[in-house]
Amino acid sequence: MVSKSQTKLITSLQQKKYRIQNGLFVAEGPKVITELLNEGLKLQAFFSTNSAEISAENHFQITETELKKISFLKTANTSLAVFEIPKVKPLQDTGLIVALDAIRDPGNLGTIIRLCDWFGVRQLLCSEDTVDCFNPKVVQATMGSLGRVNIHYRSLSDCLKNTTLPIYGGFMEGNNIYSEKLPKDGIVVMGNEANGISDEIIQKITHKISIPRFGNIQKTESLNVATATAILLSEFRRTIEM
Amino acid sequence: MVSKSQTKLITSLQQKKYRIQNGLFVAEGPKVITELLNEGLKLQAFFSTNSAEISAENHFQITETELKKISFLKTANTSLAVFEIPKVKPLQDTGLIVALDAIRDPGNLGTIIRLCDWFGVRQLLCSEDTVDCFNPKVVQATMGSLGRVNIHYRSLSDCLKNTTLPIYGGFMEGNNIYSEKLPKDGIVVMGNEANGISDEIIQKITHKISIPRFGNIQKTESLNVATATAILLSEFRRTIEM
Repeated sequence: MVSKSQTKLITSLQQKKYRIQNGLFVAEGPKVITELLNEGLKLQAFFSTNSAEISAENHFQITETELKKISFLKTANTSLAVFEIPKVKPLQDTGLIVALDAIRDPGNLGTIIRLCDWFGVRQLLCSEDTVDCFNPKVVQATMGSLGRVNIHYRSLSDCLKNTTLPIYGGFMEGNNIYSEKLPKDGIVVMGNEANGISDEIIQKITHKISIPRFGNIQKTESLNVATATAILLSEFRRTIEM
Repeated sequence: MVSKSQTKLITSLQQKKYRIQNGLFVAEGPKVITELLNEGLKLQAFFSTNSAEISAENHFQITETELKKISFLKTANTSLAVFEIPKVKPLQDTGLIVALDAIRDPGNLGTIIRLCDWFGVRQLLCSEDTVDCFNPKVVQATMGSLGRVNIHYRSLSDCLKNTTLPIYGGFMEGNNIYSEKLPKDGIVVMGNEANGISDEIIQKITHKISIPRFGNIQKTESLNVATATAILLSEFRRTIEM
């Protein structure tokens, strides 16, 4: 059974404000839940329609109707878990770091977190107006990657002011990434979907880079921020690999 | 005004079956419509809430309520256009070609079409069970790119049987793309979101390639098909650029 107070709490966790207030977020479906458990995230409560999965005090067997009521998904899975938001390790001024300037789309953030995980980027720096990484859509898209990448919400401007690392940003008129000698450590800034990198942050960029176009230069739309991140991270890593 | 028969026709174009039957598809909003017109696509009918945009016989001024009724979007724009599905140029066995094996997600197809456009890939080959490129979600996501890339729906198996080009496909155990010498011309096969490249098509692959992982190899989720396409196309093109 799901108590009234549990239902109220879970429903509230759709909103960032209540996730922060309670230090909790929701993940749904056995695959995502198992991956987050494997990453050591702490379970606050677990609800499942399958009695075989109920093995601890904070586990609750519920009916499909009850699950449907608390689920954030259009089509509810068989289980829903409430996790504690993990503490992030202190930000370290080392390694390859991705910095996001006002990314708004949960799908883009989810893809970028998975890319960080793939390319061994352990620190992701998000401006305070970037979409929350514990947003339900991001959680469902990132799976276990959410537990493997340290995600910091900070003033980008302050962080970039204090770093000793080179700061890269993508621009139309930047240096060709294919011929640029890229370092092992650095910060790669990716800008907002509609407006790109903000003026305040542009001033902090030490290296302007560009992904060459091969199509009709006049007409081609810009690349989506997640695919641009994929290409840039691949370029930074191929140098190590070669 | 929108006549009853126009409403019926437009509504039916949400479905692939009726798009093919009528040879028509829908695009919404001035940006997408203008880009498609610039690419030479033929307008069958144009509906706008703005009288200033009504300048030809097949243009119709409508109210917001009428637009809302025929729009496929959650939030209707100010205009909706019905375009003729353009004739594709005959498939040529030359250049860099992307081949999609049962891509189901319209967002992924849209991103891949834009990537083809960016990287100058003029021919996109889609298996017959790949999502339709005139699906409303694909149209809205690809903008003018849809008019610049030739998209062929064919039996992949037949096409790959008859090509003289090398056929590349992404696999876990393939050759490292960073050290592989990639040709200027070739076919790059990308597989279904859940199942990858199908067995029948795997047999046709002449070059197995792989994007190296830098994260925890055991745990990292696979890359999304659109981001993998971004990285592969960038690698194929960087050889030309260098």
